[in-house]
Amino acid sequence: MQMNFVKKLIKSAEEKNSIVCLGMDPVLEEIPINEQSPSKKIVKFYSDIIEATHDSIGAVKPNYAFFAQYGFPGLRALKKVISVCKNKKLPVILDAKRGDIGKSSAAYAKEVFEFWKADAVTISPFMGKDSVEPFIKYCGKGKGVYILTRTSNPGAADLQDYQKTAAKVKEWHTEGVGAVVGATNVAELKEINEIFDGKMPLLIPGVGAQGGSAKEIVEALGENIKLHRINSSSGINYVYKKQDTDDYAGAAAKAVKELNGEIGI
Amino acid sequence: MQMNFVKKLIKSAEEKNSIVCLGMDPVLEEIPINEQSPSKKIVKFYSDIIEATHDSIGAVKPNYAFFAQYGFPGLRALKKVISVCKNKKLPVILDAKRGDIGKSSAAYAKEVFEFWKADAVTISPFMGKDSVEPFIKYCGKGKGVYILTRTSNPGAADLQDYQKTAAKVKEWHTEGVGAVVGATNVAELKEINEIFDGKMPLLIPGVGAQGGSAKEIVEALGENIKLHRINSSSGINYVYKKQDTDDYAGAAAKAVKELNGEIGI
Repeated sequence: MQMNFVKKLIKSAEEKNSIVCLGMDPVLEEIPINEQSPSKKIVKFYSDIIEATHDSIGAVKPNYAFFAQYGFPGLRALKKVISVCKNKKLPVILDAKRGDIGKSSAAYAKEVFEFWKADAVTISPFMGKDSVEPFIKYCGKGKGVYILTRTSNPGAADLQDYQKTAAKVKEWHTEGVGAVVGATNVAELKEINEIFDGKMPLLIPGVGAQGGSAKEIVEALGENIKLHRINSSSGINYVYKKQDTDDYAGAAAKAVKELNGEIGI
Repeated sequence: MQMNFVKKLIKSAEEKNSIVCLGMDPVLEEIPINEQSPSKKIVKFYSDIIEATHDSIGAVKPNYAFFAQYGFPGLRALKKVISVCKNKKLPVILDAKRGDIGKSSAAYAKEVFEFWKADAVTISPFMGKDSVEPFIKYCGKGKGVYILTRTSNPGAADLQDYQKTAAKVKEWHTEGVGAVVGATNVAELKEINEIFDGKMPLLIPGVGAQGGSAKEIVEALGENIKLHRINSSSGINYVYKKQDTDDYAGAAAKAVKELNGEIGI
């Protein structure tokens, strides 16, 4: 029988002793590898990083945009990187921000779960219930769906009402549904987690670079900490640049270790 | 010098005498072509339809989801279909509903305009100003950006406030920015067009199948009709099934002619 996504999250947090999600934002110019093929360059970069970190992270989050900007070579790299991560038993959250009306959402759900073979996906709730349902249907097949609830960017306040969104996400909830909640405002994060009764997996980007510290976040979340994931992308991917080394995998592993220490589970 | 997107819209409406946008939603099971390769099947289907309709439509709207559900073969077909449409001087609106925070949106904009080479894209405003800006920047390079303002699905009311969204879209406006407004409620369509002073290109899906008639929509829009596009997807793509024929291209051309007649510009 297939394991459901929530169990997968908890199992990986226990096995790896980590709730860190390693975000993957490939930028060719930042990858210190002499290799002409963009696809091979990206695959080698993340394969090395995964080799160095897989036993101390609880998930990965490839960002679709960063791969797709390189066209077919980028997309081929994404396919390969997902496979590398799955071989290491890491839950793969494809950060694709998908969302459309009924039939189109069904096609997107088929894309992310059947073609990309992601374990979970990020989606936008903007078009409402019938736009999220085709994704949520896959929760019955062991997949996860993180719905954008409060993003961590300056424009978030323009059209988002996080309380209203959180209430809808709660209404749509079934096991496997989670929420993306930015780390910028720890009080809001706490409030949203309480709306969910602490039972919904949260994916929390924006730690460090954009906002709150990992320690504050963990305190705000309270129990069930292994259900959640704190994401770090550029702080792991390209941290080698701050350490006066080209050993990007070693630098990434060190940054992961530090973040795990700060989280302290 | 590069023609801006608004001029491109008006020019194609004048040359083709049509404001119909042909939506492209490939579904392999619905395509009556004996061909094993999904990619070739999709490309032949739409090449034949474009050959039969290109002189009487004012734009095309390939739906990313429907191509992407077939993985790499679907994406290769999308690349080819976009090229076929551009060769016929049709404005290509990639219906991809993209949207993310700053750097990710910049990567998505690079994807749609530089890799897919679309003339315009549909995006979600959910994450606010800094999420739409990287797309809007391309308007200066002749590209178009349609921002979801009022979708035509049942769940639209869950989290959308179309008046608030329209006000934001107007605030963000620069030449080349347009709005996606469903045809379900003609009174709302009229209201939104008035908020925009009738000056913003509207992309209107949901005619026929989901809502208002083309005639009502044209009346509601008033002047500057050549700026707007009325989209029809399944009503053109698979109309052959209703006509007891396998001549899908001929059936599509007939449906386009009827829709143009109903619009009556």
